[in-house]
Amino acid sequence: MANKTAPDATRRSQRSRQAICEAALALVGETGYDKLTIEGIAARAGVGKQTIYRWWPSKGAVLLDAFTEGVQDGGGTLPDTGDLATDLKAVLRATVDEFNDPAFQAPYRALYVAMVNDSEVSAGFTSKVLEPGTRAYADRIRAAQEAGEVDPDADPELAAEMILSPFAQRWLLRSRPLTHAFTDRLVDQALAGLRPRRA
Amino acid sequence: MANKTAPDATRRSQRSRQAICEAALALVGETGYDKLTIEGIAARAGVGKQTIYRWWPSKGAVLLDAFTEGVQDGGGTLPDTGDLATDLKAVLRATVDEFNDPAFQAPYRALYVAMVNDSEVSAGFTSKVLEPGTRAYADRIRAAQEAGEVDPDADPELAAEMILSPFAQRWLLRSRPLTHAFTDRLVDQALAGLRPRRA
Repeated sequence: MANKTAPDATRRSQRSRQAICEAALALVGETGYDKLTIEGIAARAGVGKQTIYRWWPSKGAVLLDAFTEGVQDGGGTLPDTGDLATDLKAVLRATVDEFNDPAFQAPYRALYVAMVNDSEVSAGFTSKVLEPGTRAYADRIRAAQEAGEVDPDADPELAAEMILSPFAQRWLLRSRPLTHAFTDRLVDQALAGLRPRRA
Repeated sequence: MANKTAPDATRRSQRSRQAICEAALALVGETGYDKLTIEGIAARAGVGKQTIYRWWPSKGAVLLDAFTEGVQDGGGTLPDTGDLATDLKAVLRATVDEFNDPAFQAPYRALYVAMVNDSEVSAGFTSKVLEPGTRAYADRIRAAQEAGEVDPDADPELAAEMILSPFAQRWLLRSRPLTHAFTDRLVDQALAGLRPRRA
């Protein structure tokens, strides 16, 4: 059975990739992005440095794959109960809890550093995480638009950015608290708009 | 005149600080944040390493001061022509041009890296740049609220975040183009809101 080695080698490769990704996430949580090295990841994963360089050009690229492994389904789909505000608030509240979790913070912050430093990592993050995530919100807003709950002139993609970016910025810069009250208000204000409405 | 040395020393200090800040901005544009070192800044500025450490604890802290030196007045004040949309659009268009300028990009991106890495730098940036900037927008929106142009229930601070954060995110992640059309639309949509308005 000449075929037998191939699946074994594939499985071994997958195990190595998995070990490298786990090592990168664990290490960056301990040391921060600055001190993260390919050597360190290799040692922690129990593989040779060359194994890592065979698959990834940089520590930022490893981190991106490690991070996106867990969010394989991209943005997924938002719930649709027929009430846009309810659905947006529910998903955002869950995301607030996730982003406030310290176990999530360290590798995700490190990934942001990698992105700002390296435009290939930011392009990868944009296409693998940011765009699918924004699209999931935009799709839900578009469905509400088709149901007559959202103005036909509104731009669902831009609306998604207006809801998600203030969230991302508060988290990234720790500038203001990331709470359920904040995301609830964000949704209400995006829906209502600033101009007075006739009662 | 025993006083005479003091002003000279002060002037010398100011000149050194200035040289250090300029060196940090120039160097980080050439090498990126990762490769920026206190030694490198000292050599470029023609001062000793200890001179830098006397005033700043880290390269991120130098960069923050170097960056905020130029924007001394914080957020300043937005124009008030009596038409909120016109004023917001004008300021945002000018900011688009500034952020698309390559000379501005490199040190500002480096500062972002420093912020994500170092919560003291991000606290400093938040209080010196981000908060005054957001407040300038919020003040203009509040003035419009007092003039009856904005709904009394709207939150001007949150409105400012909803306009500024999508801008910041597109720039930081280079995720989508930063254009006048984008910022114009952002203002219109923040004002109109997503819910249909009766004609």
